[in-house]
Amino acid sequence: MTRRILIVGAGPAGTLLACCLARRGFQVDVYERRPDPRLLDEEESRSINLGLSARGIKALDDIGLMDTLWPLTVPMRGRAIHLPGGGAPFQPYGAHEGEILHSVLRRDLITTLIDHAEAQPGVSFHFRHRLVDLDREAAAVHLAEEGTGAALTVRGDAVIGADGAFSQVRARMQHGLRVDHHQEFLEWGYKELTIPADDGSARTRLEALHVWPGEDALIVAHPNRDNSLTGTLFLPVERFEEIADPEEFFRARFPDAIGLMPHLAKEYAEHPVGHLVSIRTSPWHYRDRVALIGDACHAVYPFYGQGMNASLEDCTVLDRCLGAHPDDLGRAFAEYQRLRKPHTDVLDELSKQNFVELRDRLRSPFHLARKKADLLLARLLPGRWVPLYTMISHTTTPYADALARARRQDAILRWAGVATGAVALAAVRRSTRKGGPRC
Amino acid sequence: MTRRILIVGAGPAGTLLACCLARRGFQVDVYERRPDPRLLDEEESRSINLGLSARGIKALDDIGLMDTLWPLTVPMRGRAIHLPGGGAPFQPYGAHEGEILHSVLRRDLITTLIDHAEAQPGVSFHFRHRLVDLDREAAAVHLAEEGTGAALTVRGDAVIGADGAFSQVRARMQHGLRVDHHQEFLEWGYKELTIPADDGSARTRLEALHVWPGEDALIVAHPNRDNSLTGTLFLPVERFEEIADPEEFFRARFPDAIGLMPHLAKEYAEHPVGHLVSIRTSPWHYRDRVALIGDACHAVYPFYGQGMNASLEDCTVLDRCLGAHPDDLGRAFAEYQRLRKPHTDVLDELSKQNFVELRDRLRSPFHLARKKADLLLARLLPGRWVPLYTMISHTTTPYADALARARRQDAILRWAGVATGAVALAAVRRSTRKGGPRC
Ligand SMILES: Cc1cc2nc3c(=O)[nH]c(=O)nc-3n(C[C@H](O)[C@H](O)[C@H](O)COP(=O)(O)OP(=O)(O)OC[C@H]3O[C@@H](n4cnc5c(N)ncnc54)[C@H](O)[C@@H]3O)c2cc1C
Ligand SMILES: Cc1cc2nc3c(=O)[nH]c(=O)nc-3n(C[C@H](O)[C@H](O)[C@H](O)COP(=O)(O)OP(=O)(O)OC[C@H]3O[C@@H](n4cnc5c(N)ncnc54)[C@H](O)[C@@H]3O)c2cc1C
Repeated sequence: MTRRILIVGAGPAGTLLACCLARRGFQVDVYERRPDPRLLDEEESRSINLGLSARGIKALDDIGLMDTLWPLTVPMRGRAIHLPGGGAPFQPYGAHEGEILHSVLRRDLITTLIDHAEAQPGVSFHFRHRLVDLDREAAAVHLAEEGTGAALTVRGDAVIGADGAFSQVRARMQHGLRVDHHQEFLEWGYKELTIPADDGSARTRLEALHVWPGEDALIVAHPNRDNSLTGTLFLPVERFEEIADPEEFFRARFPDAIGLMPHLAKEYAEHPVGHLVSIRTSPWHYRDRVALIGDACHAVYPFYGQGMNASLEDCTVLDRCLGAHPDDLGRAFAEYQRLRKPHTDVLDELSKQNFVELRDRLRSPFHLARKKADLLLARLLPGRWVPLYTMISHTTTPYADALARARRQDAILRWAGVATGAVALAAVRRSTRKGGPRC
Repeated sequence: MTRRILIVGAGPAGTLLACCLARRGFQVDVYERRPDPRLLDEEESRSINLGLSARGIKALDDIGLMDTLWPLTVPMRGRAIHLPGGGAPFQPYGAHEGEILHSVLRRDLITTLIDHAEAQPGVSFHFRHRLVDLDREAAAVHLAEEGTGAALTVRGDAVIGADGAFSQVRARMQHGLRVDHHQEFLEWGYKELTIPADDGSARTRLEALHVWPGEDALIVAHPNRDNSLTGTLFLPVERFEEIADPEEFFRARFPDAIGLMPHLAKEYAEHPVGHLVSIRTSPWHYRDRVALIGDACHAVYPFYGQGMNASLEDCTVLDRCLGAHPDDLGRAFAEYQRLRKPHTDVLDELSKQNFVELRDRLRSPFHLARKKADLLLARLLPGRWVPLYTMISHTTTPYADALARARRQDAILRWAGVATGAVALAAVRRSTRKGGPRC
């Protein structure tokens, strides 16, 4: 008999998992409280964009979707760091061509995934259906239809909570259990601001991730296919209200950004402040009845650009565990948590550190020297010296393995002494410039 | 007009706070889901005992209760460490006479506090009343009477959640706020076992805290006034079920304990397994309407014997903040969290470390040497060298200040080198033995 899985939440994790489960022959029902994104017009579905990198790409490629998605993305070949004194030096990503990020609209990604899932037998999406309660013993969800409030109860063989950081499936699944839970809100929040195209052409270098670093405020911007960019302004939460005149604030802090954002004042007034939460939690599953995926089991601060990528990668890991234990959902779920959680825990740590890096260190000469040494070593020792950022963003090396390796590399760098290292490297560089094959 | 404060929970924190608030002229109502402990007979109110130390003593003395309480306590002058090979060397606490802990039955402590609070004008206790909901805007509690289920709503000027680690006041107060929450269950749980008096006299040294350390199981026992001791067996949670024959297990692991526990098999079968949780959380208050105290805002593992002591100390800090801001509960609550939370956060860290110490290190020769060096330095440099354990257990130095000082001392010890230190100390010791006034 075909087993039926109920997925709550049609974000990146829920929609990709629907595709994977359908391929394994499950009947899949996805319940999403928001309307079908395909039925909304442009204005209604104003979408954020996200940086898609190696892990997400691999997971999407696994179900054969990248060919459809590539045309919907814009490559980001490196970072453009906007300095307060003016100028925006461009740092290419990684040491090798091809190590680039890709900006994609959340709406485009989700829509592609929904279309693909729906085309497979046994998959149905139920939009405007909100989970209001869960019976974890029965794998049953209680839903309310948005608008009408009509109530509905559906029972499956298992329920997957893909309902994001404030997962109701998680809350109800874990109720009364021995739960480890670590939740933190960052003191900083965010607001979206647009860099619109100027008469059809881009106002700044398009194929880059733009960063305006700062201790008290920072901006990150990703490009869109229509030559606009979407900026995200990060500030200590209470600052948003204190700033009476955003243009004046920008003139003082981000002088070169103000020319790029003609709608700054209006958007600043109208766009809500988003909050940033980090969540590590356990357990991720309840027997063979309920499991969590994506932000529902590991929300991270967005400063490594990995939240969605990790959520997509989760699907691959869970899918593999279902393959290894085809007749035992409980074992598959347990194995999935065992294999996956150590890595998303590390991602949480790294995402917190990268906030500090963006905020405090991006402009520090020591940090820049360190980054340069890293990139240089990567060129000199291809495949043997891989900077942490590269491993996280441009490879699918599991997060914890990447960190362990970076720590070994760090120890070597520290041991050699940064200063001695720099001198030696300069010498090596000169000699390889002269005769070496690689530079 | 007299302001009315509603306290939920009549544990150590709630009952002491009732006394403090009454002294400040508040009207106080305390709601407790359990029956009045004064109405239960011995058997019904089987009570755990707790180690009362300097902080708790200070807080209780502040409201003039120690004279009533002293006769209800048993001094613990040091630790008796039971070694697997037999023998139980006694380590006195601290370097100075008077640095001792006091064992008290929870029931005796609470009863004394309730009697004292009730004797003051404006204080009422409402037993068998369980909080079922909280309206944080209105400072109103919704209660159900145990047994009858009768519902009751009471409104005050503010509500204090003193309802322990799984505080419902906390859950409802924090709902939807930007909450930082760190909760962990220890992999180990506990079970109480009695060392009854033998025909009226104690079976082992009474005035000591007994410890049977171990990597895979440990026991801690406190004395009672009737010459019995109450032991707490700590084990990895799943082990409790696996042990089919507790006597056999004890014979192998705690051979000298088996003779002390004639009811071992029966108690092992009948007593429930307790779980140990650590909680750090924020915020501790909601405007001027709701605040948390005791385990409700900082539950710690019991291995430093400080949970209740810290909860009692909270009352003193909150009371002082109410004194500083007599007309502004909101400021008093905010100030209380600002002053107090950094210290209970440190206690959480220390309590986790002390588990490792009890489990792994108590028997290690290096650790014993370090302890000895610490005690010796404390004797040689009275008031200037204070071991961490002494500062936590035998002083009221705020927890974080104690840790900071211990770290400075540690750095010195490390810097001097443990080995060199030991030699030098031995020399100093010999010379002070000969001519010094202190040893
Ligand atoms: C400012 C910002 C920038 C980011 N940038 C990046 C980036 O560049 N790269 C990257 O990889 N990640 C990024 N992320 C992280 C990324 O957005 C998330 O990790 C990702 O969206 C998680 O996917 P998900 O499917 O697990 O959860 P979500 O995307 O949160 O989806 C959950 C879905 O469940 C639905 N839902 C919730 N509750 C219910 C309910 N009760 N009933 C029914 N449905 C429900 C929601 O409506 C939603 O559709 C960023 C995040 C932020 C905040
Ligand atoms: C095994 C063990 C050993 C320990 N040993 C020590 C020790 O030696 N020294 C030490 O200092 N500490 C020790 N502790 C810690 C100590 O027990 C706690 O820190 C202390 O009891 C906390 O006091 P409290 O008043 O904040 O909460 P609690 O003691 O938990 O009291 C909370 C009260 O609220 C009531 N309540 C709960 N929910 C509701 C509701 N919904 N409605 C109404 N009432 C409610 C409960 O019935 C209870 O009476 C130990 C703990 C454990 C588990």
